[in-house]
Amino acid sequence: MLKRSVDLSEKSNVVYIGRKPPMSYVMAIITSFSGSNAKDVTLKARGRSITTAVDTAEIIRRRFMKDLDISAITIGTEEIQQEEGGTRNVSTIEIMLTRVSP
Amino acid sequence: MLKRSVDLSEKSNVVYIGRKPPMSYVMAIITSFSGSNAKDVTLKARGRSITTAVDTAEIIRRRFMKDLDISAITIGTEEIQQEEGGTRNVSTIEIMLTRVSP
Repeated sequence: MLKRSVDLSEKSNVVYIGRKPPMSYVMAIITSFSGSNAKDVTLKARGRSITTAVDTAEIIRRRFMKDLDISAITIGTEEIQQEEGGTRNVSTIEIMLTRVSP
Repeated sequence: MLKRSVDLSEKSNVVYIGRKPPMSYVMAIITSFSGSNAKDVTLKARGRSITTAVDTAEIIRRRFMKDLDISAITIGTEEIQQEEGGTRNVSTIEIMLTRVSP
Protein backbone atom coordinates (compact mmCIF):
# COMPACT_ATOMS: atom_id res chain seq x y z
CA MET A 1 0.00 0.00 0.00
CA LEU A 2 1.23 3.44 -0.88
CA LYS A 3 1.34 6.00 1.87
CA ARG A 4 1.04 9.61 0.84
CA SER A 5 2.26 12.41 3.03
CA VAL A 6 0.38 15.66 2.80
CA ASP A 7 2.22 18.89 3.39
CA LEU A 8 -0.32 21.15 5.03
CA SER A 9 1.74 24.28 4.48
CA GLU A 10 1.29 23.81 0.76
CA LYS A 11 -2.46 23.80 1.03
CA SER A 12 -3.89 24.90 -2.28
CA ASN A 13 -7.11 26.86 -2.19
CA VAL A 14 -9.46 25.08 -4.51
CA VAL A 15 -13.23 25.50 -4.61
CA TYR A 16 -15.06 22.78 -6.55
CA ILE A 17 -18.10 24.10 -8.39
CA GLY A 18 -21.09 21.78 -8.62
CA ARG A 19 -24.84 22.15 -9.03
CA LYS A 20 -25.62 24.68 -6.32
CA PRO A 21 -26.43 28.28 -7.21
CA PRO A 22 -23.41 30.58 -7.77
CA MET A 23 -23.98 32.45 -4.48
CA SER A 24 -23.08 29.35 -2.42
CA TYR A 25 -19.69 29.28 -4.07
CA VAL A 26 -19.23 33.04 -3.74
CA MET A 27 -19.52 32.55 0.02
CA ALA A 28 -17.06 29.63 -0.03
CA ILE A 29 -14.51 31.72 -1.91
CA ILE A 30 -14.82 34.71 0.41
CA THR A 31 -14.29 32.34 3.35
CA SER A 32 -11.34 30.74 1.62
CA PHE A 33 -9.65 34.09 1.09
CA SER A 34 -10.33 35.45 4.55
CA GLY A 35 -9.51 32.30 6.49
CA SER A 36 -6.09 31.64 5.03
CA ASN A 37 -4.40 34.84 3.96
CA ALA A 38 -4.33 33.18 0.56
CA LYS A 39 -3.36 35.27 -2.42
CA ASP A 40 -5.34 33.09 -4.81
CA VAL A 41 -8.20 30.64 -5.03
CA THR A 42 -8.86 28.33 -7.97
CA LEU A 43 -12.37 27.36 -9.07
CA LYS A 44 -12.68 23.95 -10.71
CA ALA A 45 -15.72 22.71 -12.58
CA ARG A 46 -16.70 20.25 -15.25
CA GLY A 47 -19.57 19.64 -17.63
CA ARG A 48 -22.70 21.73 -17.08
CA SER A 49 -21.14 23.35 -14.00
CA ILE A 50 -18.67 25.25 -16.18
CA THR A 51 -21.26 28.00 -16.67
CA THR A 52 -21.77 28.22 -12.90
CA ALA A 53 -18.00 28.60 -12.42
CA VAL A 54 -17.94 31.55 -14.84
CA ASP A 55 -21.01 33.09 -13.16
CA THR A 56 -19.38 32.69 -9.75
CA ALA A 57 -16.11 34.32 -10.85
CA GLU A 58 -17.98 37.25 -12.41
CA ILE A 59 -20.28 37.80 -9.43
CA ILE A 60 -17.54 37.76 -6.82
CA ARG A 61 -15.26 40.01 -8.85
CA ARG A 62 -17.90 42.58 -9.75
CA ARG A 63 -19.95 42.68 -6.57
CA PHE A 64 -17.98 41.41 -3.60
CA MET A 65 -14.21 41.52 -3.96
CA LYS A 66 -13.25 44.18 -6.44
CA ASP A 67 -9.56 43.63 -5.70
CA LEU A 68 -9.66 40.26 -7.47
CA ASP A 69 -8.11 39.57 -10.85
CA ILE A 70 -8.70 36.57 -13.05
CA SER A 71 -5.09 35.49 -13.36
CA ALA A 72 -5.53 32.32 -15.40
CA ILE A 73 -8.23 30.34 -17.16
CA THR A 74 -7.52 26.86 -18.50
CA ILE A 75 -9.82 24.35 -20.12
CA GLY A 76 -9.33 20.62 -20.55
CA THR A 77 -10.93 17.22 -20.93
CA GLU A 78 -11.36 14.44 -18.40
CA GLU A 79 -12.18 10.83 -19.12
CA ILE A 80 -15.00 9.56 -16.94
CA GLN A 81 -15.47 5.84 -16.25
CA GLN A 82 -19.11 4.96 -16.76
CA GLU A 83 -20.88 2.47 -14.51
CA GLU A 84 -22.22 0.60 -17.51
CA GLY A 85 -18.65 0.26 -18.83
CA GLY A 86 -16.65 2.37 -21.24
CA THR A 87 -15.64 5.98 -20.86
CA ARG A 88 -16.93 9.35 -21.91
CA ASN A 89 -15.21 12.71 -22.11
CA VAL A 90 -16.23 15.72 -20.10
CA SER A 91 -14.86 19.25 -20.45
CA THR A 92 -13.28 21.02 -17.48
CA ILE A 93 -12.40 24.58 -16.56
CA GLU A 94 -10.08 26.09 -13.96
CA ILE A 95 -10.36 29.76 -13.10
CA MET A 96 -7.72 31.25 -10.84
CA LEU A 97 -8.69 34.35 -8.87
CA THR A 98 -5.82 36.40 -7.48
CA ARG A 99 -6.00 39.16 -4.95
CA VAL A 100 -4.35 42.34 -6.15
CA SER A 101 -2.63 44.22 -3.37
CA PRO A 102 -4.22 47.66 -2.99
CA MET B 1 -27.62 59.00 -39.52
CA LEU B 2 -24.25 57.48 -38.93
CA LYS B 3 -22.67 55.59 -41.78
CA ARG B 4 -20.23 52.89 -40.88
CA SER B 5 -17.68 51.64 -43.33
CA VAL B 6 -16.64 48.04 -43.06
CA ASP B 7 -13.13 47.08 -44.01
CA LEU B 8 -13.46 43.57 -45.42
CA SER B 9 -9.75 42.88 -45.21
CA GLU B 10 -10.01 43.13 -41.45
CA LYS B 11 -12.64 40.46 -41.24
CA SER B 12 -12.47 38.91 -37.82
CA ASN B 13 -13.22 35.23 -37.61
CA VAL B 14 -15.84 34.82 -34.94
CA VAL B 15 -18.05 31.79 -34.44
CA TYR B 16 -21.03 32.38 -32.16
CA ILE B 17 -21.89 29.36 -30.06
CA GLY B 18 -25.57 28.75 -29.36
CA ARG B 19 -27.77 25.79 -28.55
CA LYS B 20 -26.76 23.37 -31.29
CA PRO B 21 -24.56 20.36 -30.48
CA PRO B 22 -20.79 21.04 -30.40
CA MET B 23 -20.18 19.20 -33.68
CA SER B 24 -22.07 21.85 -35.68
CA TYR B 25 -19.66 24.47 -34.41
CA VAL B 26 -16.65 22.24 -34.99
CA MET B 27 -17.64 22.16 -38.67
CA ALA B 28 -18.13 25.96 -38.75
CA ILE B 29 -14.67 26.49 -37.28
CA ILE B 30 -12.94 24.13 -39.70
CA THR B 31 -14.67 25.97 -42.55
CA SER B 32 -13.68 29.31 -41.11
CA PHE B 33 -10.00 28.31 -40.95
CA SER B 34 -9.87 26.72 -44.37
CA GLY B 35 -11.86 29.35 -46.22
CA SER B 36 -9.89 32.37 -45.14
CA ASN B 37 -6.28 31.49 -44.45
CA ALA B 38 -7.05 32.84 -40.98
CA LYS B 39 -4.53 32.28 -38.24
CA ASP B 40 -7.16 32.43 -35.53
CA VAL B 41 -10.86 32.00 -34.86
CA THR B 42 -12.65 33.23 -31.75
CA LEU B 43 -15.59 31.38 -30.21
CA LYS B 44 -18.10 33.55 -28.38
CA ALA B 45 -20.83 32.26 -26.10
CA ARG B 46 -22.98 33.35 -23.22
CA GLY B 47 -25.09 31.78 -20.50
CA ARG B 48 -25.71 28.05 -20.79
CA SER B 49 -23.84 27.92 -24.11
CA ILE B 50 -20.53 28.55 -22.32
CA THR B 51 -20.21 24.81 -21.67
CA THR B 52 -20.83 24.11 -25.37
CA ALA B 53 -18.07 26.58 -26.30
CA VAL B 54 -15.59 24.75 -24.06
CA ASP B 55 -16.73 21.36 -25.45
CA THR B 56 -16.32 22.66 -29.00
CA ALA B 57 -12.80 23.99 -28.37
CA GLU B 58 -11.73 20.72 -26.76
CA ILE B 59 -13.22 18.50 -29.48
CA ILE B 60 -11.70 20.42 -32.37
CA ARG B 61 -8.30 20.66 -30.73
CA ARG B 62 -8.10 17.03 -29.67
CA ARG B 63 -9.77 15.29 -32.61
CA PHE B 64 -9.70 17.47 -35.72
CA MET B 65 -7.04 20.19 -35.80
CA LYS B 66 -4.17 19.18 -33.58
CA ASP B 67 -2.18 22.22 -34.71
CA LEU B 68 -4.52 24.54 -32.77
CA ASP B 69 -3.59 26.30 -29.56
CA ILE B 70 -5.92 28.03 -27.15
CA SER B 71 -4.24 31.41 -27.20
CA ALA B 72 -6.64 33.34 -24.96
CA ILE B 73 -9.70 32.79 -22.82
CA THR B 74 -11.61 35.73 -21.39
CA ILE B 75 -14.81 35.85 -19.38
CA GLY B 76 -17.14 38.77 -18.84
CA THR B 77 -20.66 39.93 -18.10
CA GLU B 78 -23.27 41.38 -20.43
CA GLU B 79 -26.37 43.29 -19.45
CA ILE B 80 -29.46 41.98 -21.23
CA GLN B 81 -32.56 44.13 -21.69
CA GLN B 82 -35.59 42.12 -20.72
CA GLU B 83 -38.85 42.39 -22.62
CA GLU B 84 -40.78 42.86 -19.39
CA GLY B 85 -38.46 45.75 -18.49
CA GLY B 86 -35.30 45.90 -16.43
CA THR B 87 -32.03 44.15 -17.09
CA ARG B 88 -30.34 40.97 -16.06
CA ASN B 89 -26.71 39.94 -16.23
CA VAL B 90 -25.43 37.03 -18.24
CA SER B 91 -21.88 35.65 -18.23
CA THR B 92 -19.87 35.45 -21.44
CA ILE B 93 -16.79 33.63 -22.65
CA GLU B 94 -14.43 34.15 -25.56
CA ILE B 95 -12.01 31.41 -26.56
CA MET B 96 -9.41 32.24 -29.18
CA LEU B 97 -8.04 29.33 -31.19
CA THR B 98 -4.78 29.97 -33.01
CA ARG B 99 -3.15 27.83 -35.65
CA VAL B 100 0.41 26.93 -34.79
CA SER B 101 2.62 26.79 -37.87
CA PRO B 102 3.98 23.28 -38.32
